[in-house]
Amino acid sequence: MNKQSLYRLQQGFLRLRSNKIFETIVIIIIVFSALMVGAKTYEETNRFTPILNVLDWAVTLFFLVEIIIRLLAERRWRDFFKSGWNVFDFIIVVASLIPVENSETVLIARLLRVFRVMRLVSMVPELRMLMNALLKALPKMGYVALFMFIIFYIYGAIGSFIFRDINPFYWDNISIAVLTLFRISTFESWTAIMYETMEVYPWSWVYYVSFIFFSAFIFLNMMIGIVLETMQKESAAHEVEQGEGEAADLKALRQGMQDMQAQMKRMEQLLNQPRSTDKDSG
Amino acid sequence: MNKQSLYRLQQGFLRLRSNKIFETIVIIIIVFSALMVGAKTYEETNRFTPILNVLDWAVTLFFLVEIIIRLLAERRWRDFFKSGWNVFDFIIVVASLIPVENSETVLIARLLRVFRVMRLVSMVPELRMLMNALLKALPKMGYVALFMFIIFYIYGAIGSFIFRDINPFYWDNISIAVLTLFRISTFESWTAIMYETMEVYPWSWVYYVSFIFFSAFIFLNMMIGIVLETMQKESAAHEVEQGEGEAADLKALRQGMQDMQAQMKRMEQLLNQPRSTDKDSG
Amino acid sequence: MNKQSLYRLQQGFLRLRSNKIFETIVIIIIVFSALMVGAKTYEETNRFTPILNVLDWAVTLFFLVEIIIRLLAERRWRDFFKSGWNVFDFIIVVASLIPVENSETVLIARLLRVFRVMRLVSMVPELRMLMNALLKALPKMGYVALFMFIIFYIYGAIGSFIFRDINPFYWDNISIAVLTLFRISTFESWTAIMYETMEVYPWSWVYYVSFIFFSAFIFLNMMIGIVLETMQKESAAHEVEQGEGEAADLKALRQGMQDMQAQMKRMEQLLNQPRSTDKDSG
Amino acid sequence: MNKQSLYRLQQGFLRLRSNKIFETIVIIIIVFSALMVGAKTYEETNRFTPILNVLDWAVTLFFLVEIIIRLLAERRWRDFFKSGWNVFDFIIVVASLIPVENSETVLIARLLRVFRVMRLVSMVPELRMLMNALLKALPKMGYVALFMFIIFYIYGAIGSFIFRDINPFYWDNISIAVLTLFRISTFESWTAIMYETMEVYPWSWVYYVSFIFFSAFIFLNMMIGIVLETMQKESAAHEVEQGEGEAADLKALRQGMQDMQAQMKRMEQLLNQPRSTDKDSG
Repeated sequence: MNKQSLYRLQQGFLRLRSNKIFETIVIIIIVFSALMVGAKTYEETNRFTPILNVLDWAVTLFFLVEIIIRLLAERRWRDFFKSGWNVFDFIIVVASLIPVENSETVLIARLLRVFRVMRLVSMVPELRMLMNALLKALPKMGYVALFMFIIFYIYGAIGSFIFRDINPFYWDNISIAVLTLFRISTFESWTAIMYETMEVYPWSWVYYVSFIFFSAFIFLNMMIGIVLETMQKESAAHEVEQGEGEAADLKALRQGMQDMQAQMKRMEQLLNQPRSTDKDSG
Repeated sequence: MNKQSLYRLQQGFLRLRSNKIFETIVIIIIVFSALMVGAKTYEETNRFTPILNVLDWAVTLFFLVEIIIRLLAERRWRDFFKSGWNVFDFIIVVASLIPVENSETVLIARLLRVFRVMRLVSMVPELRMLMNALLKALPKMGYVALFMFIIFYIYGAIGSFIFRDINPFYWDNISIAVLTLFRISTFESWTAIMYETMEVYPWSWVYYVSFIFFSAFIFLNMMIGIVLETMQKESAAHEVEQGEGEAADLKALRQGMQDMQAQMKRMEQLLNQPRSTDKDSG
Repeated sequence: MNKQSLYRLQQGFLRLRSNKIFETIVIIIIVFSALMVGAKTYEETNRFTPILNVLDWAVTLFFLVEIIIRLLAERRWRDFFKSGWNVFDFIIVVASLIPVENSETVLIARLLRVFRVMRLVSMVPELRMLMNALLKALPKMGYVALFMFIIFYIYGAIGSFIFRDINPFYWDNISIAVLTLFRISTFESWTAIMYETMEVYPWSWVYYVSFIFFSAFIFLNMMIGIVLETMQKESAAHEVEQGEGEAADLKALRQGMQDMQAQMKRMEQLLNQPRSTDKDSG
Repeated sequence: MNKQSLYRLQQGFLRLRSNKIFETIVIIIIVFSALMVGAKTYEETNRFTPILNVLDWAVTLFFLVEIIIRLLAERRWRDFFKSGWNVFDFIIVVASLIPVENSETVLIARLLRVFRVMRLVSMVPELRMLMNALLKALPKMGYVALFMFIIFYIYGAIGSFIFRDINPFYWDNISIAVLTLFRISTFESWTAIMYETMEVYPWSWVYYVSFIFFSAFIFLNMMIGIVLETMQKESAAHEVEQGEGEAADLKALRQGMQDMQAQMKRMEQLLNQPRSTDKDSG
C-alpha cells in the first residue's frame, strides 16, 4: 500500500468525519455511552446498554482505524506528532483502548473511560474551534489572573490580619482568607461573614463592599477586554478582505486616470504639432 | 365567496391586527385574563372577572375567525400548514377552544388554558421576532451545550468517584453529581458542599474553584459568541445595503472612465487621421 | 424687568450651573445633606449638621431663584411646562420647599425630603443623560418584560398545579409561584425548593434547570439587544457624519467625469467638423 | 558619572525589565514570596523559604538600584516625581525596604510587606495598562455611582421608614437600609428579608422586585457604557488611521481630474484656435 492511496483513504475518512449525518450519529453514540456510565451506578438494568456498548466500540474502532491511516499517511512518524491536535487525538484514542471492566485499578480505569467523552472535541469541528478560542484566550487571561491575584492577596492579607481572632475558620491565614474572598466574590453568604465582623468592627462593611466593587470591576474588564480583542481581530480580517475590493477599485481608477493623462499628453502634442504643419502647409 | 374577497378580508384582518391601539387592547385583555386564572385561586371574588371573561372570549373569537379566513384564503389546505407560524397559531387557537370549566380532567384543561397566553406571541410582531431569535440561536447553543456537557460530565465523574462516600446526597452517581455541579455553577450554597469535602480532602477547593472558572469562562464565551454573531450578521446586512451605494458609485466611475478612454481613442485616431489628410491635402 | 434681561439672567444661571467647580460643590452639599437625614437617626449629634443645613437651604434657594427666572423668561407660563425636564425640576423644587420638621404627617414629610436628592439628576448633565437612556430603553424593555411574563406565567401555572400540595408557601397559586420563580431566576436558595419537590417527583429538576436556562437566555437576549441597538444608533449617526464626506467626494468625482465627458463630446465634434472644413478648404 | 551614561544605564535597565524571560522570573519570585507570607502562618516549615527570601531581596535590590539610577538620570529631583508611575514605584520600593521581622508594630510592618506585591504592577506592562484602564474609567464610574446612590438612597429611605419596626437589624436607619439593599442587589438571601416584611405588608414584594430591576438595569447600563466608550475610542483611532489611506486616494483622484479638466480646456482652445487659422489659411 503506497503513500498516495493512504492519503486518498485519509481524505475519504476526513470527508466521512465531516459528514453532518455521520457526525450527528457519532455524537449521539458518544453522549449516550457517556450517560450509560452514569446510569450503570443505578440499580435498574437498561436494555439499551448492550446495543450502546457495541456502537461505542464501533466508534472507538472507527477512531482507531482513522488514526492509524493518518499515522501511515505521514512520511515520518515524527511529523504526525508535530500537530497538537494529532497528539490530542492519539492520546484519547489510545486511552479509550485500555480495557475498563477487567482493570484492577478501578478508579483510574473509570476516569480513563470518562475522558473518552473528549473524543467529541476531536470529532466536532465547532468544538475544536471553541477549544482553540479557550487556548488562545489563556495568555490574556493570565495577566487578568495576575491582577486578580494582587487584589485578592492584598485584601486577603488585610482580612487575615484584622479578622483572624473573630472567626479563624474564614480568616486564619492568607490562603484561607483568599478562599473566603473568592467565596465573597461569588456573593455566597457573604453577609453572614460581614455581620460577624461588623459586631467587632462596625466599619468593616467598607472592606467587603469595596472588595465586591473591585472584583466585579476586574471581572467586567476581563470580559470587555476579551470581547474587544475578538471583535478587533474579526473586523480587521473582514476589513482586509473587504478593503481589498474597494482598494482595488480605487487603484483601478487611479491607473485609468494616469493612462488617460498620458493619452491626453499625446493628444495635446498632436494638436500642437498639426497646427505647425498646417501653418507650414498654409 | 371567492378566493379574492377572502384574501382582501384576510388583509383587512392583518391590518387590524397590526394596528397599535387594537394590539394594545388585545395584549391587556390576554394579560388580565391570564392574571385572572391566578387570581381565581384566591378566595376573594373579583367584579372584573365576568367582564374579562367576555373580552377573553371575544379575543378567542377574533383569533378563530381570523384563522378560518386565513385557512380559506389558501388554495389548498396543505399550503396553510407549510408555515411554522400558521401551525403554531392553529394549535393555540384550537387549544383555546377546548371548554375548560366543564372538562373532567381538570389539570390538563387548566394547562391548556395556561398556554392561551401564547397567543401574545402570535399577536405581537416584536415577540415573534424574539421567538425567531430564540429559534435561530438554538443550533449554536447546541454546540456550547455539548461543550458544557463534556466539562460537566468529566467534573461530575471525578466528583462522584472521589466524593461519593463523603455525601451521597450530592455525589452518589454521575447524574446527581452533574446536578450538584449545575447548582455550584449558579453559586448556590456551593461553599457548604466544598467545606464538607475539604474536611476529608483539604485540597478539594482546587476542584471547585477550577470548575467555577471553567464554567464561567464557557458561559462568557457563549455570550460573546452570540453577541459577535448577531453583530456580524447585522453589519454584513448593513454593509451590503450601504456598500451597494458606494460600490455602485465606484462602478459608475469605472464605467465612465472606460467610456472616456474609448472616446479618447477615437479622438486620437481622428487627430492622427486628419494630419495624414492634411499632409495629403498639403 | 423685561424679558430680554431675564433671558440674559437665565443664561448666566445656566453657565453657573454647568460650571464644574460649582457643580461639584452643589453635588457635595446635596449628597452630604442626604447622608445627614440618615445620620440623624443615630443618637450622636454631628457638629457639621448646622453648617450643612445652611448650605442645603442655600442650594434650595439657588434652585428656587433659578426656576423662577426660567419661568419668567418664558413668554407664556404654559410653554414652560411643555418640557418634561422643566416639570420635573419644578416638582422637585416645590417639594423641597415644604417645611419638614414642623409637618404633622411625619412620614410623608420625610419621604418628600428624600426626594430632594433627585435635584442631583436635574443638576448634573451626565445624570440627565443616564435618565434619558433609561426612559428611551423603556418601550423595548416592555416587550422583553412581556416575553418574560409569558415564560414566568406558563412555568408558574405548571408549578402551582403540580407542586401546590408539596409546599403551599412556594406554590399555592400562580402569583405566589411566579414570585418563587423570580427568586429562582436570581439563584436564591433555589436548590432547597428543588430538593423538596424532587422527593415527590424525582424528575422535577428538569422543570428548574430548563427554567433557569430559559430565563438566563432571555436576560442575555435583552442585554445583547440593548447593546446592539445603542451601538447601531451610534454607528448610524457616525456613518451619516463620515459618509457625507466620502459620498461628497464620490459625487464630486462623478460630476467631474460628466463635465469631462460633455467637454470631450464637444471636442470630438470639433475634431470631426474641421476635418470636413479642411476637406472643403482642401 | 555624567547624566548621559546614567541615561544609557537607565535604558539598559528598561530593556532588561521589558525582557520577557527576566519579567517571568521576577513575577514568579514576587508571587512565590507573596505566597510564602501566607504559608508562614502554617506550622509546617518550608525548605524553599530561605531561597525565596534571598531571591525576594535580590528583586528588592534590583528595584532599588533601578529607581536610584532613574532618579539620578533626571536633571532635577522634582522632575522625577512629576510622573505618577514614578511616585508609585518610589513608594513601593521605599516601603519594601522597611525591615519587617524586627519591626515592633507588627501589623503595620506586615501590611507594608503585603503591598510589596504591588511591585508586580510596576513590573508588568500589561498590568500597568489594566491599572491605567481602571484609573481612566473612574470619572465615568463616579457618575454611575452617583446615580446608584440616588436609587439606593430613595429605596433605603422608603425601606427604613416602612420596615423599621419589622426588623431593626435590616432597616433601623437609612445607612443600615442601604447596606441591606446592597446585599439584596447581590441576591444574597434577599427572599428571607422579603418574606419577613410580606407578613406585615403583603404587597412589599413590589419594593424588592422593582429595586432588583432598577439596580440590575443600572449595572447593565454601566457595563454597556464602558464597552461602548472603549470601542468608540478604538474604532475612532482605527478609522483615522485607515480613513487617511482612502481619503488620500480620493483626494488624488480629484486632483487628477482637475488636472485633466485643465488640460482639456487647453486642448479645446487649441481645437478652436486652429480652425480659425485654418479658415485664415483657407
